[in-house]
Amino acid sequence: MYQSLGQLKETKVFKDPVHRYIYVDDQLIWQLIGTKEFQRLRRIKQLGTSFLTFHGAEHTRFHHSLGVYEITRQLINVFNGRPEWDDQYRELALCAALLHDVGHGPFSHAFENVFGVEHETWTERIILGDTEIKAVLDQVGDGFAEEVAAVIRKTHPNKLLVTMISSQLDVDRMDYLLRDAHFAGVSYGTFDLERMLRVLRPSRDQLVVKQSGMHSIEDYIMRRYQMYWQVYLHPVTRSSDYLLKAILERAQELYAGHYDFTVTPFHLIPLFEQTMTLKDYLALDETIVYFYFQQWMEEEDKVLSDLASRFVNRKLFKYVDYPQEKRDAVHERLCLAFSKIGLDPDYYLLEDKLSRLPYDLYLENGEISRHPIMLQMKDGTLKEISQVSPLVRAIATSRQTDEKLFFPQEELYDLKEFANEKMQIDTLLRGDH
Amino acid sequence: MYQSLGQLKETKVFKDPVHRYIYVDDQLIWQLIGTKEFQRLRRIKQLGTSFLTFHGAEHTRFHHSLGVYEITRQLINVFNGRPEWDDQYRELALCAALLHDVGHGPFSHAFENVFGVEHETWTERIILGDTEIKAVLDQVGDGFAEEVAAVIRKTHPNKLLVTMISSQLDVDRMDYLLRDAHFAGVSYGTFDLERMLRVLRPSRDQLVVKQSGMHSIEDYIMRRYQMYWQVYLHPVTRSSDYLLKAILERAQELYAGHYDFTVTPFHLIPLFEQTMTLKDYLALDETIVYFYFQQWMEEEDKVLSDLASRFVNRKLFKYVDYPQEKRDAVHERLCLAFSKIGLDPDYYLLEDKLSRLPYDLYLENGEISRHPIMLQMKDGTLKEISQVSPLVRAIATSRQTDEKLFFPQEELYDLKEFANEKMQIDTLLRGDH
Amino acid sequence: MYQSLGQLKETKVFKDPVHRYIYVDDQLIWQLIGTKEFQRLRRIKQLGTSFLTFHGAEHTRFHHSLGVYEITRQLINVFNGRPEWDDQYRELALCAALLHDVGHGPFSHAFENVFGVEHETWTERIILGDTEIKAVLDQVGDGFAEEVAAVIRKTHPNKLLVTMISSQLDVDRMDYLLRDAHFAGVSYGTFDLERMLRVLRPSRDQLVVKQSGMHSIEDYIMRRYQMYWQVYLHPVTRSSDYLLKAILERAQELYAGHYDFTVTPFHLIPLFEQTMTLKDYLALDETIVYFYFQQWMEEEDKVLSDLASRFVNRKLFKYVDYPQEKRDAVHERLCLAFSKIGLDPDYYLLEDKLSRLPYDLYLENGEISRHPIMLQMKDGTLKEISQVSPLVRAIATSRQTDEKLFFPQEELYDLKEFANEKMQIDTLLRGDH
Amino acid sequence: MYQSLGQLKETKVFKDPVHRYIYVDDQLIWQLIGTKEFQRLRRIKQLGTSFLTFHGAEHTRFHHSLGVYEITRQLINVFNGRPEWDDQYRELALCAALLHDVGHGPFSHAFENVFGVEHETWTERIILGDTEIKAVLDQVGDGFAEEVAAVIRKTHPNKLLVTMISSQLDVDRMDYLLRDAHFAGVSYGTFDLERMLRVLRPSRDQLVVKQSGMHSIEDYIMRRYQMYWQVYLHPVTRSSDYLLKAILERAQELYAGHYDFTVTPFHLIPLFEQTMTLKDYLALDETIVYFYFQQWMEEEDKVLSDLASRFVNRKLFKYVDYPQEKRDAVHERLCLAFSKIGLDPDYYLLEDKLSRLPYDLYLENGEISRHPIMLQMKDGTLKEISQVSPLVRAIATSRQTDEKLFFPQEELYDLKEFANEKMQIDTLLRGDH
Repeated sequence: MYQSLGQLKETKVFKDPVHRYIYVDDQLIWQLIGTKEFQRLRRIKQLGTSFLTFHGAEHTRFHHSLGVYEITRQLINVFNGRPEWDDQYRELALCAALLHDVGHGPFSHAFENVFGVEHETWTERIILGDTEIKAVLDQVGDGFAEEVAAVIRKTHPNKLLVTMISSQLDVDRMDYLLRDAHFAGVSYGTFDLERMLRVLRPSRDQLVVKQSGMHSIEDYIMRRYQMYWQVYLHPVTRSSDYLLKAILERAQELYAGHYDFTVTPFHLIPLFEQTMTLKDYLALDETIVYFYFQQWMEEEDKVLSDLASRFVNRKLFKYVDYPQEKRDAVHERLCLAFSKIGLDPDYYLLEDKLSRLPYDLYLENGEISRHPIMLQMKDGTLKEISQVSPLVRAIATSRQTDEKLFFPQEELYDLKEFANEKMQIDTLLRGDH
Repeated sequence: MYQSLGQLKETKVFKDPVHRYIYVDDQLIWQLIGTKEFQRLRRIKQLGTSFLTFHGAEHTRFHHSLGVYEITRQLINVFNGRPEWDDQYRELALCAALLHDVGHGPFSHAFENVFGVEHETWTERIILGDTEIKAVLDQVGDGFAEEVAAVIRKTHPNKLLVTMISSQLDVDRMDYLLRDAHFAGVSYGTFDLERMLRVLRPSRDQLVVKQSGMHSIEDYIMRRYQMYWQVYLHPVTRSSDYLLKAILERAQELYAGHYDFTVTPFHLIPLFEQTMTLKDYLALDETIVYFYFQQWMEEEDKVLSDLASRFVNRKLFKYVDYPQEKRDAVHERLCLAFSKIGLDPDYYLLEDKLSRLPYDLYLENGEISRHPIMLQMKDGTLKEISQVSPLVRAIATSRQTDEKLFFPQEELYDLKEFANEKMQIDTLLRGDH
Repeated sequence: MYQSLGQLKETKVFKDPVHRYIYVDDQLIWQLIGTKEFQRLRRIKQLGTSFLTFHGAEHTRFHHSLGVYEITRQLINVFNGRPEWDDQYRELALCAALLHDVGHGPFSHAFENVFGVEHETWTERIILGDTEIKAVLDQVGDGFAEEVAAVIRKTHPNKLLVTMISSQLDVDRMDYLLRDAHFAGVSYGTFDLERMLRVLRPSRDQLVVKQSGMHSIEDYIMRRYQMYWQVYLHPVTRSSDYLLKAILERAQELYAGHYDFTVTPFHLIPLFEQTMTLKDYLALDETIVYFYFQQWMEEEDKVLSDLASRFVNRKLFKYVDYPQEKRDAVHERLCLAFSKIGLDPDYYLLEDKLSRLPYDLYLENGEISRHPIMLQMKDGTLKEISQVSPLVRAIATSRQTDEKLFFPQEELYDLKEFANEKMQIDTLLRGDH
Repeated sequence: MYQSLGQLKETKVFKDPVHRYIYVDDQLIWQLIGTKEFQRLRRIKQLGTSFLTFHGAEHTRFHHSLGVYEITRQLINVFNGRPEWDDQYRELALCAALLHDVGHGPFSHAFENVFGVEHETWTERIILGDTEIKAVLDQVGDGFAEEVAAVIRKTHPNKLLVTMISSQLDVDRMDYLLRDAHFAGVSYGTFDLERMLRVLRPSRDQLVVKQSGMHSIEDYIMRRYQMYWQVYLHPVTRSSDYLLKAILERAQELYAGHYDFTVTPFHLIPLFEQTMTLKDYLALDETIVYFYFQQWMEEEDKVLSDLASRFVNRKLFKYVDYPQEKRDAVHERLCLAFSKIGLDPDYYLLEDKLSRLPYDLYLENGEISRHPIMLQMKDGTLKEISQVSPLVRAIATSRQTDEKLFFPQEELYDLKEFANEKMQIDTLLRGDH
């Protein structure tokens, strides 16, 4: 039914800091990489505002997408020859790997939060809509684009493919842990990919791990956990993410109130009005957002111009630990202080509570997660890893939490008239930057 | 005369993929990093368009400036205690290291080429003008900012400082070789920095190398040479640089001809009109340039919209080797072909000839370079390295050249009516992608 | 009272694969490294027989001792200037670090096990006996050698020094995790040493960790745990260790029985007779042991010659998992089989049960360990880490066990007459190599 | 004619610090690795006495042989499918790669120098003699062992195989540069193996490099050159090598003079008497040599005991630069001084002159070397690299030399009565250790 576009005459090679080289042999993959929708991922950073905390983290979703493709390519090479692997799914797997994040927009998490866009939805629209990507996929045959989309949205009947691309132990996470660690310059996320690929096995319904690989998986779980607390949830990044959201909310509020922007934010109006087309969405990237933010530094609205300046010039809010039992007392005092100096707590005060498990065996509703990590025992049976590893069992319910309060500390604390409040709040918090 | 701002209460630490950690102990340095002019360097990539060749090369001038500062800090630690090093120059050296590139604008080389801006001039204006950086430096004392500028422009009387910051073997090159290699993901530029710092010595008039470090310097020279040919002068990067320049030239030409842009390029008009103020310059960065390029993809002018689309979507011109003896014949045929399909050779045809020495001992006029690498012999005398190292002597005159022709090959070659010309040109060139 | 030997005229530098460079500035340290007792550590591998599993693991106790010294040197640099650190203890700390393992003999664990020698005892005898090391230390002053010994044996009144050299989080473990991982070629043991040193703090009674370093310590604990299961307790290494012990036991038994060795094992007789002098001990190293083992390959005693040949030529026993409930049945059958082919189960059959906690908070008697890892909270109080980290708390009681049975499988299984037993044993074990 | 032993049921994997993993799929290779002659390589260090200079350099010829095998395996994977590669030679190439160094004995260079043994001869005897290796190879078919030997001795008609294993750009050098650099802990030898393998091409008569790989080869040549001067020819290693040779010469002289050794050096007598059998040779390794050296520290002969003690305890001779024009004057004075304190210049004074080219295009007789590095141009023709690369051409005749004098400086210099001579010699030499 489908018709492969065939091999390239000569292997194309990308130099990659994480995998050393990324190899492309398929016409299909090469053409997809060349589409403008895929090239657009160069203008969207993989870790959003994290570069304001870890300056090395400038890598983009373009890198990561190539990396996920490359790991999938290597994994298929390992699988090839095993009866559980059907090589007719090779191109489908590679396309899904390459395109799984193609719908991400600028600073995805903040935009999703403020405007309700969902990158999964846009991934699908890009794969199935009027795009160069769709045109390339259509060459393989009718319905192929839909199959790619189905693997990504996890509705494809081939559950092995689905779990390769998206599960607790998928190619996506393997690449981003290694890549984010490399670019941030931290060692926490570095695990032995070559060994990991060797202990993975295809099975009928999912990707599994052979029993002798148990320690590798324990290691992987711990690395991921470290990356979460030391990189992804770093308080400085939470502060810059918050600022970003505050800017977007303020701009939207102003637009709703018919505020007269000095430079009309044409690219963002479809977001404000919830009328975004595919063309509008593809025209958005982080350079565009930065353009408007820089214009907004000069806007008359004090809140917008201050927040935008803070973001562009990296004058982030500071944070203090914020234990639950002191919340009400501190909140009240801070709001009082803010009102004295004319700061709006809606924009200048953030309470942020995080809570996380090292291994997401259980969902928030207490049910077991849909795709836990399965070990293939020597006798061929499958066991969920926490049944076998005392370590994973121990940590599976070991929830770590963190509560912080973000606000423009220095501004408040520099004011003479605030000296008294400061002392009292500090006493409440035994604060720390 | 000058008054140090003192030490920070607690060392500030940046995680850096190249130096692992960057340490800041001085109030002065910490405040400089926090200025908006320095933070702006986050929006200017270190290697311009190289990320279109090596996707990892997204690192910015912000990283590099911190790295040059860090190497200087380490070098001063090594020097400290030696009679030739006067530690009162410590803060001056650190500031000059940190700020030496602060005047770079977006895609510096292309902009300098097309509009005649010089980043050295702007570095000086930023350090001495109405900026946050100037305000921070002024706290140290009157005249300190001017001293920093003097070290950077090489007019400061302390030649040791000058050569530390700028010479054949300076902290600038040490950082960029390591950093560019790391982010591009290539191994060619990686030398042993720790050893290099240990063989460097301060002397009265310049930075020198102790004799036993000769092999380290040979290694460093070879690494630099490799980086030039394998990274900095990579033909794909030359192609993207060319495209960038062509876009800027076309836009300027249109502006000069009173073309009516759909979106007025406010940020670029001062460049077109040569009326750039410091404020204008600081408002320019690569996100701004990308904004306009993306608008220009929709412009009516076909040349501008085509070139801008090519750049944004990475449809670069291909290249062929272009030996001198065939130049006229090929050029004539191509111009003819271009005219048939309506391509303007001024924008669509680039002859590019490169020529480079591994070690710049001799200037183009045959004179010896001003700051060659000097070895400090065991008896204390100084000798230029090529007098001691047979290897360096051998390569000092070993010029490597490369001539290429860039043009939109596929467009031409896909045309049926061009088949004949193609064959004849190919025969001339025995072309290669 | 004590008189430093002063600084070297020029820093001595060792190239080290783990710390890149090891720096020696002190005459005292330089002289200690040059003693024959310290140089002897070059002939004793750090990981005993592990090189038979991980061929890279050829590194010696000489490397490790230098590495522990270097980490201590760096740690003291970090501590210097803090009121809790008294720099008069610098040389004492460096000597204790350098010499802490100087009493190790060949294949320490096996020799300790078989002959009851204790490396701690010999470390002390070497530091306090008639040795070049003692002569060097005596130059500092009477009693200094005793102080070094006291720090190493943990009886020195300065508990900070004691815990720096020997505790759950000491310089010894920091070096060996990094070094063993590097030479074995595995990534599991690699943690961020530079950051670790920055979160350590001197306190009155011990080395502590500042609160913000909690995640670093979690990471360190997990790396150590991985190294135990993936390297130190690797079943192949357990097999070679077992073989080594069996050889030594057999030789001792033969000697006790007045067996007439072809080449008299002069170096080992003091061990057999428990009459070892300091001179005897220092004359022993792994090259000596290997000499005798190679002679023994030709001995008439079949058990000794077979075991020695197996060790030298790496024909190790294979292993099978050995669940407790099947122990008696399997054991009985194997002994029966052995008797048929003339193998002595005392030498040819090993039951090995391991059990280990990731973090040794609790001693085997249930009491809390003497030097647990203490966090220094923001308010200055100390808390044992499992009280603060949910992760460490979760794993502190998560004991992992492993039971294996080692025997020369192939020899047994190749016999036709054993086919039946084999099948039945396999059925019992569902064995795996 | 030949019969492959087939594939293993499951790939065997060695963890390797250089190549990360070494994969064995062939029964034949697996069995060869298990032979006692191959396992013996674990007891012979790759870099002889270099570990006395670079303590990390404890790696053995076992590691290196596996590494050469692994690179060959990868290279064949790259070649596979190309018409110039005939895959029937796969096992032959792998065996030759694995076994090419199997005849090395302890401290090969010193032993070859003193006793005239040649490792190439012994490699052949081991492959063709009464050994486990021969037995394994014979399973493939009669004559196969001879073919393996022929590839290694470069007489095999398949010149491609010969040059893969042994030429200016062979798998042997590729592994040892990477491995020696890794274990010594230096960065000079690290080149990009993955890229190197991608630019190599099989051709009819030899291994060649495709034109676009020219810079990679330049880089490789420079790395090799750096490794020679910074590691292999390091003066401290030359000093320890010299000491080793002096010991062997003294022992041989004593034996020839019927000296009565306390412990008869049975293993070495066949060397002294030139009656070495294959069995004798295989019984020799570095643990055996170290055993005798340690006995000799107690010998009555003062020269032997002193030299042996110096080697075992690393009290090496120091060195001074020794320019040719001062040779006679210095030599005379030193011999005079030696005679006063009873040192025999034959054992205690070494003049050592080194001379080396970065790229061995020309033989010492001025002829061109037999297997220079050939580039395969785009038009298919082959050109020797120095005809194409200006860099290689420049360095091909850039000979570097080094002259040093080694002697037990401190012993001489500590003597009062020598003060005068010392001053005069120093004046002659402007000496430096």
